[in-house]
Amino acid sequence: MSLIDKRDTLIKKWLKKAAADIKESLKSDLNVETKTKRNDLVTNMDRQIERDFVEQIQYHFPEDQIVSEEGYGDKIEDIHLEENTVWFLDPIDGTLNFVLQEENFAVMLAVYEKGIGQQAYVYDVMRDELYWAIKGKGVYCNDQLLPKMSDTPLKDGLFASNSMYLSDKQVNLNTEITKQAMGVRTIGSAGIEATELAKGSVVAYVSYGLKPWDVAPGLILIEENGGVLTEFDGSPIDLLNTKPTIMGTPTANEEIQKMI
Amino acid sequence: MSLIDKRDTLIKKWLKKAAADIKESLKSDLNVETKTKRNDLVTNMDRQIERDFVEQIQYHFPEDQIVSEEGYGDKIEDIHLEENTVWFLDPIDGTLNFVLQEENFAVMLAVYEKGIGQQAYVYDVMRDELYWAIKGKGVYCNDQLLPKMSDTPLKDGLFASNSMYLSDKQVNLNTEITKQAMGVRTIGSAGIEATELAKGSVVAYVSYGLKPWDVAPGLILIEENGGVLTEFDGSPIDLLNTKPTIMGTPTANEEIQKMI
Repeated sequence: MSLIDKRDTLIKKWLKKAAADIKESLKSDLNVETKTKRNDLVTNMDRQIERDFVEQIQYHFPEDQIVSEEGYGDKIEDIHLEENTVWFLDPIDGTLNFVLQEENFAVMLAVYEKGIGQQAYVYDVMRDELYWAIKGKGVYCNDQLLPKMSDTPLKDGLFASNSMYLSDKQVNLNTEITKQAMGVRTIGSAGIEATELAKGSVVAYVSYGLKPWDVAPGLILIEENGGVLTEFDGSPIDLLNTKPTIMGTPTANEEIQKMI
Repeated sequence: MSLIDKRDTLIKKWLKKAAADIKESLKSDLNVETKTKRNDLVTNMDRQIERDFVEQIQYHFPEDQIVSEEGYGDKIEDIHLEENTVWFLDPIDGTLNFVLQEENFAVMLAVYEKGIGQQAYVYDVMRDELYWAIKGKGVYCNDQLLPKMSDTPLKDGLFASNSMYLSDKQVNLNTEITKQAMGVRTIGSAGIEATELAKGSVVAYVSYGLKPWDVAPGLILIEENGGVLTEFDGSPIDLLNTKPTIMGTPTANEEIQKMI
């Protein structure tokens, strides 16, 4: 079994376990705390799921490095993305939805080897939809291969917008993009927005504050299915120092760059 | 069997048939036309589903009047809401989602007797989730009674915003509400937004351009579960002459009225 297949088998097993634990946790009260601001939440489940994944990754792949949301992985400054195999882990992407909606959140993992995205997993737990990709083999939802993305321009598709309060300048950009597009949609999980783009339900997603673990799986899923992720000036994403990001079909990405 | 139960049985049977027809239609190409503007769409399925419902309603309840989206019902100016039994029908609410996403749309029906909402149905076809209510008996999702809405203020909940391009004044109001709330979400179906509010996933929804068939089912579902729908100045909804609408928990509705 190749290393990629070995990781794939393990990751899917771990994701099943995580989903079962998360669903079980919804039967009782969550322990919710705020982090940097009143709508930046963390729960006991974010921490538990991350700790479980980090333990498993460290046990099976002791040489690898881990970038993760809640602090159980390595420090960002110690990560050598160009030299090592690096795992990006977001135990619950869309924690606000997890707490307030009990749906529309995802468990996310991505593995990069020497800076190249090899495999990605975005698991929409409550819908039981696992979006995953292995580099060069296409994007799947569960066992179903997704068709490649059409290169749809903004005017023929929907725009997925940021879910938080934005500055005037950001609101103006979003309004301008919405005007060009058919309309605007917002789910509140960067990972699920990436799957929406990969499957063609939206043609672009703009976010102002993504973290490495938010963007690493989406980058693989979207590029694998024919889309483009860049910073606002068209530069490639710097995974360890993330800036505002445009994800889109090739045409929609370019259209948005021109509006900035 | 009471009249309400008779209607309930028939409506649920018709909805099943409509859902099967809609799912079948997704296997081949839809016939899509624009109506008032480039993102106001109608498909052959909107028309077929509406025609089928109107025929059934007219056959079983020949005295009743029908307000429906695609023109097979009665003319708005002929409707006597305070005197008659009036059906409100939206064959596919969220047609843009139906065409572009093949999910996140709903078949919707509501029945008012002499102006009083008696029963409402919002069927999220692709998730197979039927939200329905009979006046005084609570709101159900399929066979599950939903808990009554908590009176959550904006600061502790999510705000559901309009899915289309808005004027500067509308954008400013939405931005202000988003700032007060925990964040913003947008699905793109007024009916599904109403079910999100009824089940507590959001605490308010503001829309600028709802039509009678968009708002009639939500009005029943939301009021039945403890929420409040008003026009921007706090007046009750005028179902035959709809204006911009605030739907929310009692507190969130009041908070938004004060911002206007």
